[in-house]
Amino acid sequence: MTLPPLSSFIHGVHPPLIALLTDFGTRDPYVGIMKGVIAVHCPGAICIDLTHEVAPQNVTQGAYLLRSAYRYFPPYTVFLGVVDPGVGTARRAIAIQTGRGAFVGPDNGLFSLVLAEQESYLAVELRPPDRARLSDTFQGRDLFAPAAADLAGGLPITQLGTPLRDLVQVPPLRIDQPQPNVFEGEVIHIDHFGNVITNLGGFGWNQDRLEGALVGAIDPQHTWVYIGQEKLETIHRTYGESAVGAVLALISSDGQLEIAVNQGSAAEVLKVHLGDRVRLEIR
Amino acid sequence: MTLPPLSSFIHGVHPPLIALLTDFGTRDPYVGIMKGVIAVHCPGAICIDLTHEVAPQNVTQGAYLLRSAYRYFPPYTVFLGVVDPGVGTARRAIAIQTGRGAFVGPDNGLFSLVLAEQESYLAVELRPPDRARLSDTFQGRDLFAPAAADLAGGLPITQLGTPLRDLVQVPPLRIDQPQPNVFEGEVIHIDHFGNVITNLGGFGWNQDRLEGALVGAIDPQHTWVYIGQEKLETIHRTYGESAVGAVLALISSDGQLEIAVNQGSAAEVLKVHLGDRVRLEIR
Amino acid sequence: MTLPPLSSFIHGVHPPLIALLTDFGTRDPYVGIMKGVIAVHCPGAICIDLTHEVAPQNVTQGAYLLRSAYRYFPPYTVFLGVVDPGVGTARRAIAIQTGRGAFVGPDNGLFSLVLAEQESYLAVELRPPDRARLSDTFQGRDLFAPAAADLAGGLPITQLGTPLRDLVQVPPLRIDQPQPNVFEGEVIHIDHFGNVITNLGGFGWNQDRLEGALVGAIDPQHTWVYIGQEKLETIHRTYGESAVGAVLALISSDGQLEIAVNQGSAAEVLKVHLGDRVRLEIR
Repeated sequence: MTLPPLSSFIHGVHPPLIALLTDFGTRDPYVGIMKGVIAVHCPGAICIDLTHEVAPQNVTQGAYLLRSAYRYFPPYTVFLGVVDPGVGTARRAIAIQTGRGAFVGPDNGLFSLVLAEQESYLAVELRPPDRARLSDTFQGRDLFAPAAADLAGGLPITQLGTPLRDLVQVPPLRIDQPQPNVFEGEVIHIDHFGNVITNLGGFGWNQDRLEGALVGAIDPQHTWVYIGQEKLETIHRTYGESAVGAVLALISSDGQLEIAVNQGSAAEVLKVHLGDRVRLEIR
Repeated sequence: MTLPPLSSFIHGVHPPLIALLTDFGTRDPYVGIMKGVIAVHCPGAICIDLTHEVAPQNVTQGAYLLRSAYRYFPPYTVFLGVVDPGVGTARRAIAIQTGRGAFVGPDNGLFSLVLAEQESYLAVELRPPDRARLSDTFQGRDLFAPAAADLAGGLPITQLGTPLRDLVQVPPLRIDQPQPNVFEGEVIHIDHFGNVITNLGGFGWNQDRLEGALVGAIDPQHTWVYIGQEKLETIHRTYGESAVGAVLALISSDGQLEIAVNQGSAAEVLKVHLGDRVRLEIR
Repeated sequence: MTLPPLSSFIHGVHPPLIALLTDFGTRDPYVGIMKGVIAVHCPGAICIDLTHEVAPQNVTQGAYLLRSAYRYFPPYTVFLGVVDPGVGTARRAIAIQTGRGAFVGPDNGLFSLVLAEQESYLAVELRPPDRARLSDTFQGRDLFAPAAADLAGGLPITQLGTPLRDLVQVPPLRIDQPQPNVFEGEVIHIDHFGNVITNLGGFGWNQDRLEGALVGAIDPQHTWVYIGQEKLETIHRTYGESAVGAVLALISSDGQLEIAVNQGSAAEVLKVHLGDRVRLEIR
């Protein structure tokens, strides 16, 4: 383990920075309460919301969204992620330090897509606070927020708990390859605009990183995409390349195969849902 | 009145901190405008959103949510609360200083549940700005945000207006006790997950504070909860103790009786709404 | 051009301040990612959300909301506005410096209502980053956020690109005057409460600025407003002047003619939509 201690990134240089991702929504003060706890433990910390609208208890979606976001943050960022169907059960609570940020939350796979991209990391199981102060239903407030704040304030991660191995993984996002030139995957996210994001990635156009199961260059003029009843015969570079209202395939800003409608909602037009199958055929 | 002046918590120690709770929603720039005004009056202040999705003009719900949140913030926090059906009428505008934070907003009971938990406090009626600068419809911008920012920046509360007594109270949350072992209350909040929060509280499991009308320990194995058509014969500690999809009663992270569905929405399953009756029977 | 450089407002005095307005929604981490990029380029910057719920690709609504908000911010604020139906096409990317803040985003008219209120400004076309680092679909992350952060950190705007003239304008909000005492406009925004905001403005009651096509004082007792099937014979000062549930006309906090329902939703009661016609008759 050759990572510098997280604190070396911070002290006296940058303000403590915490990014939050939960399925808490914004109707309740739950997120605000976590930020209040952070302010108590680390005055002056800046909090950035990634999203609080992960589908309730959908750990896989949370893991995908976190992986799509973390690389754009400073390396001293602490990511506080709470999508936690097992709150109050025996699932472990963890903190992880990497060279690209620290991560605090439940050990249920929420961070596993991020960790798959790291060369090394150090994980600890969080030492719980006194029983009397630990809620069975809101450990984001009582356990995760204080730990994230302490890390952001420069506390070495080893003081938060005992080292841990064998973290829980989310089930791998399944990609089939029935023929050498055919890849089948699924819809993993539908964004605010109704853009449909799939788990087929790795094209590498304009992307910092290559990802996913697909290898090598693909000629966009000879690649067919099938989704629902639709067959798309070209992969475009940008929404504006097709007519307003037209369905098109393109590569998302995150490097994934995406199906969109120029100035419209592909999810509505195609009646597509999370988990629906997508087929990519290279001619 | 033995409270230290709020400013003594702040100067040169902590960054000014303002927590906001409104019914403004997030579709409009109203909340952002208040934060702009805060930045003008108190550069560097950190703003934390509690929620902006209080049901429109529902002062009682706002008072409940504020009370559930404030205790997790630093004592130098200024809470800016605007749920204000009477904006532009003769209702008073107030600021209140307590040992657990300051509060700024309309005098309509929004802060009364918080104040019921304080040993002492000092309230003032805010001096309005020049008539020409005070909107009849958006006093959050013209009156409350500047006052909150001034307080957060260390201005003594007595310079904001004249001391005031007899603040408006929200109607008490009604709890009936038709028999010694039976308590009847109502649904006061439904959260993002569809968890149903009631006004029956005070169990004290893992809670810092005991609250509500119920006194003494309750054996969770001999307590029945009735809501809608449902009868629940046990009070659980955590969602994960019951099967996925099962309805269960438990104590919320805030110390209130809550009805939930493990990994589902109790409000949808039970078709429960704000104000519905709940009955608790101790066997 | 006699504007002081933006940097003169900031260095060593105020923390860098960036206000964001987009149509990105809050379901995805898009906004959070932009803030992460801002933290990389300008550590310690404070970000304020104006709104991320502009109707998708509705540049005119975005321009209206931005104009209603910017004047309440400190003059050193950088406004990052991304409503961008033309992302990835040949539309230009711009930064603009004024005496009332700087503005960064696409050159599609989003800032034109703000600029119509400025005496002078300096605009530049943003120099794009290396092709390999510029996404065709998320230039908010790759182009606009870094530029906004650099400006907020004190970089002179002239170092971001080459000066530019003839910015794109949004189509003017149409106001007809079929008779000297009659003005006809349209609904330009419906807020979270269902309040209906029109493009008829300039009454000047309690407003810092006079705006719009109407000139001179109007006697509220002799002004009729027609919308949908409704005729309103008075312009009120505040919601509370009419009965709960009653439809009323008043002047918005932003100086525009507004139709509201006291403690209700005018848009629902009147079944009004964006673009519907409104008629104002002065008796």
